Amino acid sequence: MALRIALDVMGGDRGPEELVAGALLAVRELSVAVTLLGDEARIRAALPRGADALPGLEIVHTSEVIEMDESPFEAIRRKKDSSIVRAFALHKEGKVDAVVSAGNSGATMAAALKYLGRLNDISRPGIATTFPTLKGPVVMMDVGANVDCRPRHLFEFGVMAAAFSRVMYNIPRPRIGLLSIGEEGGKGNILVKKSHDLFQQSSLNYIGNVEGRDTFQGEVDVIVCDGFVGNICLKLSEGLAEALIAMLGDEIKKRLPAKIGYLLSKKAFSAFRRRVDYAEYGGAPLLGLRGTGIVCHGRSSAVAIKNAIRVATELVQNRVNDHIMELLAADDFLSLRADELDEEPAGAAP
Amino acid sequence: MALRIALDVMGGDRGPEELVAGALLAVRELSVAVTLLGDEARIRAALPRGADALPGLEIVHTSEVIEMDESPFEAIRRKKDSSIVRAFALHKEGKVDAVVSAGNSGATMAAALKYLGRLNDISRPGIATTFPTLKGPVVMMDVGANVDCRPRHLFEFGVMAAAFSRVMYNIPRPRIGLLSIGEEGGKGNILVKKSHDLFQQSSLNYIGNVEGRDTFQGEVDVIVCDGFVGNICLKLSEGLAEALIAMLGDEIKKRLPAKIGYLLSKKAFSAFRRRVDYAEYGGAPLLGLRGTGIVCHGRSSAVAIKNAIRVATELVQNRVNDHIMELLAADDFLSLRADELDEEPAGAAP
Repeated sequence: MALRIALDVMGGDRGPEELVAGALLAVRELSVAVTLLGDEARIRAALPRGADALPGLEIVHTSEVIEMDESPFEAIRRKKDSSIVRAFALHKEGKVDAVVSAGNSGATMAAALKYLGRLNDISRPGIATTFPTLKGPVVMMDVGANVDCRPRHLFEFGVMAAAFSRVMYNIPRPRIGLLSIGEEGGKGNILVKKSHDLFQQSSLNYIGNVEGRDTFQGEVDVIVCDGFVGNICLKLSEGLAEALIAMLGDEIKKRLPAKIGYLLSKKAFSAFRRRVDYAEYGGAPLLGLRGTGIVCHGRSSAVAIKNAIRVATELVQNRVNDHIMELLAADDFLSLRADELDEEPAGAAP
Repeated sequence: MALRIALDVMGGDRGPEELVAGALLAVRELSVAVTLLGDEARIRAALPRGADALPGLEIVHTSEVIEMDESPFEAIRRKKDSSIVRAFALHKEGKVDAVVSAGNSGATMAAALKYLGRLNDISRPGIATTFPTLKGPVVMMDVGANVDCRPRHLFEFGVMAAAFSRVMYNIPRPRIGLLSIGEEGGKGNILVKKSHDLFQQSSLNYIGNVEGRDTFQGEVDVIVCDGFVGNICLKLSEGLAEALIAMLGDEIKKRLPAKIGYLLSKKAFSAFRRRVDYAEYGGAPLLGLRGTGIVCHGRSSAVAIKNAIRVATELVQNRVNDHIMELLAADDFLSLRADELDEEPAGAAP
């Protein structure tokens, strides 16, 4: 039987129409079933005539919406009939296999934690994201769920992102790097130095510290960092890519021959934009949960939503959570040392 | 009398020739005197015939070189006759007004701390850098000198970078933002939340948290972060700018009409490259010292070195250190609360 994915159609900057369009693409192209959660009238208005009879498409009416700026834990406690909360409740009941949302990502993680819970031996689920590089994709984790971390948490991010890289990008033993400010193991802040020791003792394919500029060279498959640093990297990259495109456009407009050149290079420009547009990459998986969740960029297009639904189905079919458990089991020295690791304060200034 | 700048010609990836060429440009164009420190034979070989008689140009022979991968504090202790150490010793003796180096930036900071010492009430000198944005330049601090910080240190970075922004970019009351992962004051890690409170109590022009994507929009003049985050942002931006240019080049090469377009847009491309090349921005000032130091990118061109020498002279002439002291004095509540602030551990995971 086809997998069924819950889609929160009340999240996202472009309105339910774009999200519904993404769901239709997924149902038509991916042999997957989709449950749309949100205001039923708006969903029906967004469906083209006859589409609501599509096999696999289901609508669940919800009466509340969690806004982008709401405090996650309070919002999911107060708004029990919101599309995000209802989606994870359905997941818990086994009525859907995964949840996709382009709404408040903090609330999505909070609802996932509350309804699905954590995998055994994972103390901090997190959010991974894929960056395009000169060679292949690189997975960075955490990119925002955990801002103050201990070495143990960074180690878990490495395990979870490696499992994701295996399943999504077919890399049996992903190369894992720790984001720092120098390549030698002795460089970095206190958190990174202690995490480096943990990774070195593990059976993971750990290649040591990597620097910010290595991110886009394609010489590493997984980059580990805390959620504060990761989120800043993600937003900085988006902002810089946009600014660079605008600056190049400026320089071209100043020059008539270049303007003609621009018209001729137009196709190259749009291919380039697609290549660096994070929204096209199928969203960012929530990893470390007893279930599957994907958060998407607020401005995701219908195609980006379809891609996120595709990623969700692949994570379920290829059992990413089993891979996480398998990698964790290989390094069970960590659970033996858990108390010790939890007691070490990390990141405090000397 | 013209200011005299010491230039370490043994640092940098391109060899002494490029650095000497930068010094010549500075002496000819900027009415500044330059003392070249390094291996005298190599310096003389790099000088064109007759150039060593240029008024203002001086050579100081040094016998040792601090390599890029050496541990800063050990290197400056062991290599007393290195160009970096000798340059700051000259600065301390009052024989030069500032030091410029494209070598090991950690060793440069260590030598500056040892020979010049800190300004009163500055507990952590740091490194600032300028990023190009869609509007004007933005100054980020710290970008690598202090990896584990307390709120007090971030506040000092804000003060120092604001003084730099005043002096270099003629902005009387620079807008200061704290780099975080959400714009609301309640968002961020523990360090950022506590620093936010300090900035809010101050008389600085503090505009609140800024996100990574705001960096390149030009709506903030100074971005404050710890040296771990700042260094990662700097390296990530360099790496991404290079990768984007390479990716766009790829897309263009795939298409014949685009290839013709590229040839026509060539001028626009090189203007664009100059605009985003950090090496052109005149180096990164060391701030918070009893003196003036500039570190440059290892791959700095002669023009970049000339720009760094120009920035050094402007910082001395416009008395950036007096501006730092003036801004600090306006918020002396900080020194009253110094003990309390020093005792609060920052960045520890809850």
